Amino acid sequence: MQIPQPYLLFLGDVSDPLAAKTARGIHAWRPQASVGQMSLSGCTVSLGLPELTPSEAKQKGAQTFVLGIANAGGYIPEDWKEIVIEAIRCGLNVASGLHQKLTDFPELVELAEQYQVKLFDVRYHQPKLSVGSGLPRSGKRVLTVGTDCAVGKMYTSLALESAMQNLDMNAQFRATGQTGLLIAGEGIPIDAVVSDFISGAAEWVSPENDAHHWDIIEGQGSLFHPSYAGVSLGLLHGSQPDWLVMCHEMGRPHTRHLPHHPLVEINDCVYLNLYNARLTNPNVKLAGISVNTSGYSEEEAKEYLANLSEEFQVPAVDSVRFGIDSIAVFLKENAA
Amino acid sequence: MQIPQPYLLFLGDVSDPLAAKTARGIHAWRPQASVGQMSLSGCTVSLGLPELTPSEAKQKGAQTFVLGIANAGGYIPEDWKEIVIEAIRCGLNVASGLHQKLTDFPELVELAEQYQVKLFDVRYHQPKLSVGSGLPRSGKRVLTVGTDCAVGKMYTSLALESAMQNLDMNAQFRATGQTGLLIAGEGIPIDAVVSDFISGAAEWVSPENDAHHWDIIEGQGSLFHPSYAGVSLGLLHGSQPDWLVMCHEMGRPHTRHLPHHPLVEINDCVYLNLYNARLTNPNVKLAGISVNTSGYSEEEAKEYLANLSEEFQVPAVDSVRFGIDSIAVFLKENAA
Repeated sequence: MQIPQPYLLFLGDVSDPLAAKTARGIHAWRPQASVGQMSLSGCTVSLGLPELTPSEAKQKGAQTFVLGIANAGGYIPEDWKEIVIEAIRCGLNVASGLHQKLTDFPELVELAEQYQVKLFDVRYHQPKLSVGSGLPRSGKRVLTVGTDCAVGKMYTSLALESAMQNLDMNAQFRATGQTGLLIAGEGIPIDAVVSDFISGAAEWVSPENDAHHWDIIEGQGSLFHPSYAGVSLGLLHGSQPDWLVMCHEMGRPHTRHLPHHPLVEINDCVYLNLYNARLTNPNVKLAGISVNTSGYSEEEAKEYLANLSEEFQVPAVDSVRFGIDSIAVFLKENAA
Repeated sequence: MQIPQPYLLFLGDVSDPLAAKTARGIHAWRPQASVGQMSLSGCTVSLGLPELTPSEAKQKGAQTFVLGIANAGGYIPEDWKEIVIEAIRCGLNVASGLHQKLTDFPELVELAEQYQVKLFDVRYHQPKLSVGSGLPRSGKRVLTVGTDCAVGKMYTSLALESAMQNLDMNAQFRATGQTGLLIAGEGIPIDAVVSDFISGAAEWVSPENDAHHWDIIEGQGSLFHPSYAGVSLGLLHGSQPDWLVMCHEMGRPHTRHLPHHPLVEINDCVYLNLYNARLTNPNVKLAGISVNTSGYSEEEAKEYLANLSEEFQVPAVDSVRFGIDSIAVFLKENAA
């Protein structure tokens, strides 16, 4: 299920940096994972990578052509399809995060077979799953959880992986969303699995491991989000985390996309996550709080974080603004 | 999405009454929904319905031929397929609860088109879904929840519907599993939807209704089941229940299929269900406890139920042994 790296990152003709979020994430967190970028005329976003054709990228060792961009509707336009065909003819695998599947085009499937390359539709990418067993497994696990969607759970997980590796801890990011999956080259987009298999998918994502190996599992949604809480709970149970890192955005007034739902208090959210997590790991604890404070001054942010740290007796950080080292150190010092 | 009734219930050659559980459930709860049964040689199970061929059933008004039985592996054997073909040729729709899809046989799909009938694979039966909105909607809702899987949530829901209708309440069973779906003729098997849509599916199953209309929603799994809790939580949020009925089996030592997981205490289970349900309905309350006491004497059962009723201040019943009228009366008297 591994997506072969390194990549050639396709940027299309995007002009909105947000539309290239996945490509930027891959380059930011796995700078060695890409040999170059490919953009079309009109594209105003650059990752600062060499501009390469599929053929040039193949010569530089690229293994997979990645459509790591978003476009309106998630459809694959005709001119992009021509480029995908070119990539396949050059012997590159193709990975796409778009809604429309590569494998919905019979000519692409046929061509991929002919050139013996693989098509990865990461939004739908999943192995044959079993229902969760709830059985304890060896290895240490950290899960990022949140007061809401889009509060930085993936960023926090990747930043924590990096900070822990800097402390010589054997830490490994585990992807549960499509962007994370392209960054890691493996994982399961857990919101796309059949609901019976949520916790089974989480067990698959972070399998049994050495006692001193750390999985840093990318969380999804929130137990307090009325649309997605089922995914969050299944992921919590299946991950069997030893430690939770709570993610939050300072000052967010209400649950994302639901103006009628005020955002939960961090306190209640920590409580309910720990309560539920004990079902599969009675020793679960809070390891830290990771906050997006970007809407506030540095002084306000620091005071807010200091208060959280005092209240919960764990490090509270803004991992973008001030780094996440203190949570990595806390985990190293407090690991059993 | 309605499966047209009445049915002809196919019993195949089953000799184990449990294998005919769905057919028996349909006949027990919707006695008017079937014109007859059809069994093959070797079948030792009978519903006491007239034995009819598809052609005879069609003449008696049958609209759908129902494969409401289980067989090893869930596959459709060759001789059953021949009978399905005969049913289609007689102008009957076909509904199946088996793992293998009717629609996986191109010849059945083609024949159904030719005879203008529909094929319903109820295990996979779903409309185009949206993510849950969490928005309040009118009408009253009761959801059955449980300390585990297989503690009588469907039975309790159907029994409560019947008891409430006897009190002239406008109550309607809402199916979330495949057996329930065949009984009601509509619904969604919620464990088969993509996990992002669990609460959206629950919202679809019990749509906005008259202020005095009651949906009695069939619960699934348990918040304390490490394999399925995500489904249970999404269903709880999407259902927005005004009332919960807790289902339980007296004396069950551990969570079903998971001997390493002791069964949760009813007290903790009531607490966590109410806590989570408040996210989408702050006024949710417990309406009763429905217990399978079949492993105990009548005296032991009555004492156990009396203690539960005293502790939780709601009716506690064994709906099979003693009926569920007291919960229906409680709902009628306490409805706002």
